[in-house]
Amino acid sequence: MTEKIDVLDKGFVRLVDYMGDDARIVQAARVSYGAGTKTYREDKGLINYLLRNDHTSPFEQVVFVFHLKMPIFVARQWIRHRAARTNEISGRYSVLKEEYYMPEDSDIALQSKDNKQGRGEQVDMSLVKSTQTLIQTSCNNSFDIYNTLINDDIARELSRIVLPLNTYTEMYWQMDLHNLFRFLKLRMDGHAQKEIRVYAEAIFTMVKEICPIAVEAFEEHVLHGMRLSRSEVRVLKDILNSRPIGSIDEKVLKTIEEKLGYHHKAPE
Amino acid sequence: MTEKIDVLDKGFVRLVDYMGDDARIVQAARVSYGAGTKTYREDKGLINYLLRNDHTSPFEQVVFVFHLKMPIFVARQWIRHRAARTNEISGRYSVLKEEYYMPEDSDIALQSKDNKQGRGEQVDMSLVKSTQTLIQTSCNNSFDIYNTLINDDIARELSRIVLPLNTYTEMYWQMDLHNLFRFLKLRMDGHAQKEIRVYAEAIFTMVKEICPIAVEAFEEHVLHGMRLSRSEVRVLKDILNSRPIGSIDEKVLKTIEEKLGYHHKAPE
Amino acid sequence: MTEKIDVLDKGFVRLVDYMGDDARIVQAARVSYGAGTKTYREDKGLINYLLRNDHTSPFEQVVFVFHLKMPIFVARQWIRHRAARTNEISGRYSVLKEEYYMPEDSDIALQSKDNKQGRGEQVDMSLVKSTQTLIQTSCNNSFDIYNTLINDDIARELSRIVLPLNTYTEMYWQMDLHNLFRFLKLRMDGHAQKEIRVYAEAIFTMVKEICPIAVEAFEEHVLHGMRLSRSEVRVLKDILNSRPIGSIDEKVLKTIEEKLGYHHKAPE
Amino acid sequence: MTEKIDVLDKGFVRLVDYMGDDARIVQAARVSYGAGTKTYREDKGLINYLLRNDHTSPFEQVVFVFHLKMPIFVARQWIRHRAARTNEISGRYSVLKEEYYMPEDSDIALQSKDNKQGRGEQVDMSLVKSTQTLIQTSCNNSFDIYNTLINDDIARELSRIVLPLNTYTEMYWQMDLHNLFRFLKLRMDGHAQKEIRVYAEAIFTMVKEICPIAVEAFEEHVLHGMRLSRSEVRVLKDILNSRPIGSIDEKVLKTIEEKLGYHHKAPE
Repeated sequence: MTEKIDVLDKGFVRLVDYMGDDARIVQAARVSYGAGTKTYREDKGLINYLLRNDHTSPFEQVVFVFHLKMPIFVARQWIRHRAARTNEISGRYSVLKEEYYMPEDSDIALQSKDNKQGRGEQVDMSLVKSTQTLIQTSCNNSFDIYNTLINDDIARELSRIVLPLNTYTEMYWQMDLHNLFRFLKLRMDGHAQKEIRVYAEAIFTMVKEICPIAVEAFEEHVLHGMRLSRSEVRVLKDILNSRPIGSIDEKVLKTIEEKLGYHHKAPE
Repeated sequence: MTEKIDVLDKGFVRLVDYMGDDARIVQAARVSYGAGTKTYREDKGLINYLLRNDHTSPFEQVVFVFHLKMPIFVARQWIRHRAARTNEISGRYSVLKEEYYMPEDSDIALQSKDNKQGRGEQVDMSLVKSTQTLIQTSCNNSFDIYNTLINDDIARELSRIVLPLNTYTEMYWQMDLHNLFRFLKLRMDGHAQKEIRVYAEAIFTMVKEICPIAVEAFEEHVLHGMRLSRSEVRVLKDILNSRPIGSIDEKVLKTIEEKLGYHHKAPE
Repeated sequence: MTEKIDVLDKGFVRLVDYMGDDARIVQAARVSYGAGTKTYREDKGLINYLLRNDHTSPFEQVVFVFHLKMPIFVARQWIRHRAARTNEISGRYSVLKEEYYMPEDSDIALQSKDNKQGRGEQVDMSLVKSTQTLIQTSCNNSFDIYNTLINDDIARELSRIVLPLNTYTEMYWQMDLHNLFRFLKLRMDGHAQKEIRVYAEAIFTMVKEICPIAVEAFEEHVLHGMRLSRSEVRVLKDILNSRPIGSIDEKVLKTIEEKLGYHHKAPE
Repeated sequence: MTEKIDVLDKGFVRLVDYMGDDARIVQAARVSYGAGTKTYREDKGLINYLLRNDHTSPFEQVVFVFHLKMPIFVARQWIRHRAARTNEISGRYSVLKEEYYMPEDSDIALQSKDNKQGRGEQVDMSLVKSTQTLIQTSCNNSFDIYNTLINDDIARELSRIVLPLNTYTEMYWQMDLHNLFRFLKLRMDGHAQKEIRVYAEAIFTMVKEICPIAVEAFEEHVLHGMRLSRSEVRVLKDILNSRPIGSIDEKVLKTIEEKLGYHHKAPE
């Protein structure tokens, strides 16, 4: 079983402990729905049924504890998932180590034009290098001043306020499988910031080893599934009914196609 | 009614909206416990009874929404209260304004010797000034580099990683009165960091205007109350029974006296 | 505005209070995502965008309080929604009124054959009448004995244990809009028990008056939307690519068609 | 280790699984507060410190899963603890067994005169017997009619509505140690209904074997501790300062004495 995966330049995901697995989900469902499945095939069918139909409570019976090391700006997104139970290192108690995240060449990109929150085009190598130098300069300065304040015996809770958001922090993080699936759906998505996505992917890898059936069902129905709106459902019906092309709502059809990843050719 | 209180050098607490007040607590308790109080005096008695006996659910029926502006290192403590519903500004979407927290002279203090997480003695004025200069230099540097990266059109989600923990952020924050009391108990405590305490005190002031009876009960029973352990309860009994001094556990008596704020004179 | 809707034979949904509406969702999103929409058209677009992309937190800023009267077996399902804040009448404090739910003729049905948890065919009128008589006899008996125990001054917390699950109870129930949507999705579904569905529908009616844009988005994207699995997405792609019929996975196509409500003719 | 404890006439508490123990609490605190304790003595001191000072998060890192069988009226109180993760048997899916709770002789008591929600004096044996007969008659009637409805193939979700509140139900119940302590504080209290108290006591026994240090700290500081209000703290100070008797607030002194279990003699 994978116990530790290194993430980013200095971070990691370490599995501390877990409770329950695919069998526990089935057990809990048996109590709840009186289901009496017994074979592997039936268990698999039951888990798929539960996930597909939003019977989410049996998945809460599986719980994981991770030890995580990540930059603070990632931790700030992470901590928004309120179903988790967290113990994070405190800069009031401890002097923080001089460890900050430095993005690799390929992670440095321009502001996206069509995605307000994301990265767009790669930048040329000279801008990559100057960007890395700027980040490094800034963080070195901040840590130098932090260390000076600490040496002056200024209170730790005060000294730390100059530290940058890419300073590494550590936490114990406990999450149940149902809420972990929601976390993974959100944080493995292409719109999630790359620096949190890599942590989500590491966790996904570990969890898949422990609950292979549940994770496969999650992949099938949630992660790689798709939601259609009422209008899109109507169009899908029209298509399946082989309605004459003129009667199909072309605009809605286009949104379906976009969801499916088609890129419409520009008209010649 | 107080609608906005300025906090720290650039922060604030603004009351956006609220739902319910002392009367709502009584109403909810009437549903729950079939209580039939009617006069102001009886309402006050009921609210005190509820609070004293951990009948906490009627207090959850009162809800507040605040608009808050605070440094990120305060927000990181704030967000640990999971019962809240929060919308915080995102540095992935928006370019953050050059606003950071600068501690006043009187807030700059040495690391406490007996409290691992807190501030101790005041420092002399020359150290105050040099500390402030260091913080300012560090933050100016960080924001200069942030602004350079933004001007280079580097993705906002990447540029922000150099910003310091005292950068100001804003959020909408919704909390019910029961969980707000737990927040206030923890964050108005002398061990809380001063920079979060001042926000808690501002919120306390506003909430007291809206729910005067409930807040008074909170002050009486929780905020200025005291918990005694089993051993301390035993000693208290001995005292009230006027046991001869030799039979009282002196060590436990001392812990009670310390809780009460006595400082034992050193032996001559 | 609709303030009270009678539900079942003796129950009701009453709107006690609420905080926020469509405008609050937009306001909260503006803080969070820095969105600067201003017109009705833009607000509508933003709310739809938020809902479609699982940006759920702004919907939590709208909160409702209902006063509900419902049978205990409905309350037992209701209380499973843990995000709510509830004050329910207690049979330990109060003597419960002799009020129990009696299903109407059309609600009495046989156990469903293909749905383990639901109702199937209507029953003939003689069985309807005998069923109602049995229920009435049982509940009258139970309440007679309850009243005898109460008259004997047996403790209320003990006497109540003979009361039937269709005894009416009352509660104050507070819920935010995001979690209310999840409640409605689950409880307005055709698989929900009819007796909880009618309460969910009453709540839906009230909430729609207060947040018309958000509720419309919920109808479009969630309530009447559809989820396709990875396999189904693949088949949809094949269809849109006009693949020759032989190459399409007929089994998966069938599950899509079933989701869409087609009933396949039996082969002749 | 105790794995199962029978409770009431047909119920039980069974420990299904758990994750973490005293050592986990210390580990999590070490991450959080940078504490470096190592010996048994230091661990014990740290756990006591955490509990006494409301540093509750490390206790959340210990999680238990129980399989419980209890009457529905107990389950209705149980389920109010929202931090738990529960899977309960559903009367929509399964035909419920004819098992209901019958109070023993010594549990049948009169309504308390001074405690609105509780039991008071024992009743004489003839009333005990007639009460038991009434309960049995009522429950037999209800189950007879339930079984008739089931035999008539009336939908299970409908048939069950006649069942009494003392019908046994089963659930998987997962809880973390911090929230379990709050549950135990509330449900082991003398004001809790006896039928839930016995379950709480069974759970207490099991948890004490797994986390002896944490449970001992809970007993010392919470379960057998006491809270004094601001007024009571003032009086306590007066007493310790040996103020002349006339200057002490006699009314408040009396409330302290009542908390301590003194019963004031009536004046002669």
